[in-house]
Amino acid sequence: MADPQRIWTAALIVIGDEILSGRTHDKNIAQVAGWLQVQGIRLMEVRVVSDSMDRIAEAVNALRTEHDYLFTTGGIGPTHDDITVDAVAAALGLPVTIHPEAQAMLEAYYADRGGVNEARLRMARVPQGADLIPNRMSGAPGIRIHNIFLMAGVPHITAQMLDALTGTLEGGAPLLAETVGCWVAESEVADLLREVEQAHLDCQIGSYPFFREGKVGANFVVRSTDRDDLQSAVHSLCDGLGTAGYDFTPGGI
Amino acid sequence: MADPQRIWTAALIVIGDEILSGRTHDKNIAQVAGWLQVQGIRLMEVRVVSDSMDRIAEAVNALRTEHDYLFTTGGIGPTHDDITVDAVAAALGLPVTIHPEAQAMLEAYYADRGGVNEARLRMARVPQGADLIPNRMSGAPGIRIHNIFLMAGVPHITAQMLDALTGTLEGGAPLLAETVGCWVAESEVADLLREVEQAHLDCQIGSYPFFREGKVGANFVVRSTDRDDLQSAVHSLCDGLGTAGYDFTPGGI
Repeated sequence: MADPQRIWTAALIVIGDEILSGRTHDKNIAQVAGWLQVQGIRLMEVRVVSDSMDRIAEAVNALRTEHDYLFTTGGIGPTHDDITVDAVAAALGLPVTIHPEAQAMLEAYYADRGGVNEARLRMARVPQGADLIPNRMSGAPGIRIHNIFLMAGVPHITAQMLDALTGTLEGGAPLLAETVGCWVAESEVADLLREVEQAHLDCQIGSYPFFREGKVGANFVVRSTDRDDLQSAVHSLCDGLGTAGYDFTPGGI
Repeated sequence: MADPQRIWTAALIVIGDEILSGRTHDKNIAQVAGWLQVQGIRLMEVRVVSDSMDRIAEAVNALRTEHDYLFTTGGIGPTHDDITVDAVAAALGLPVTIHPEAQAMLEAYYADRGGVNEARLRMARVPQGADLIPNRMSGAPGIRIHNIFLMAGVPHITAQMLDALTGTLEGGAPLLAETVGCWVAESEVADLLREVEQAHLDCQIGSYPFFREGKVGANFVVRSTDRDDLQSAVHSLCDGLGTAGYDFTPGGI
């Protein structure tokens, strides 16, 4: 029988010099994180690494055994800097082969777009034994090998691949969250936050301060897999804020 | 004498459950990456970890010896989930102490804001022997201990701390970059990209495809610390694109 308390975990490797140079603002961390939340899988760590065989392989081997699932974004296109397949295959000690179904997909997609050339055929290369993750947008599929999911770097295409994976991965109870916003310096209510968290063992409370309209405020995010404990913690927090004379906004500011 | 070829490297640890849950979209990776580029320091790796002593300490110890500089963002505020100082001190085997100058800064800042309470005094805690990184915005300073720089998680405050550090860290020749945009499927020009890169040993070329206005295109980013080699590679790339009959846009699309 499934253990209802089991927590399923994942890690993400974002591959690309363009993120590390600051040229491109990553959008995949938030996208993958939000999607995993809905699948009941907890994202535990993200690493951003450069387009380097050694760096990618090292990160893959550090994370694939520690977590139930490992995702990568980037580096599966047709050009010389797309080396994720080679790096993952090297990390796993597997040869790289052409996946016949991926080749067929590319041939269909490029039939009226100039045909499959050598560069395009690179996108049919997979670590031996891999399955494909469909991608309706560009013909080039993502790749699943063991517990590792290789996805595109372009956020629209990553979204297609996540959509294709929705509901296919075993997860646990999703981590629920409720936010309470308050125009208060978080340092005024630090004791209250600690007390509420300590009284609700299944909850974590995060405090996220901000400066807006010339005023300080904070959103307090209560997280739990237990809906009742979550509600109880939110009530205690709102009671405490009200008693201390602060206006608060359920749902966050 | 300084070695002009020496490459200075850095890593960044982004600390916070809110990034891993997808609730908050990180802005510090791009901000720190862009700033480092200007300092002549190369960002080699980013890790996003949860608000956990063990996870933070493990990442700190993995990255601080491998790189010239290590930066962290997040977890240095006044609330119970702000544990970066404790985790870094633990990683270094140092006790945590109150920094008298930080305490004085906080007392001045909070003099007409309700005074320094226990929570606010948390923001004066540092690993023993640390220096401070000024922060004009909120009174609470960042912290430097050895080659590790602890900065705020709120992007506006991080920006203040980076500003205070500008020009104070030794770096090497900045990595220069030029972009050439082209309305072409990158798979059409993969051979050209590889050839140009191979002919210019000091350059790397990244290919960043996109879909816009219903068309595919790509930006090709040539990076080098050598201005002449960079210019030569950009010329070869533009020549090649022109010869193949493609319009291209210097500076990128």
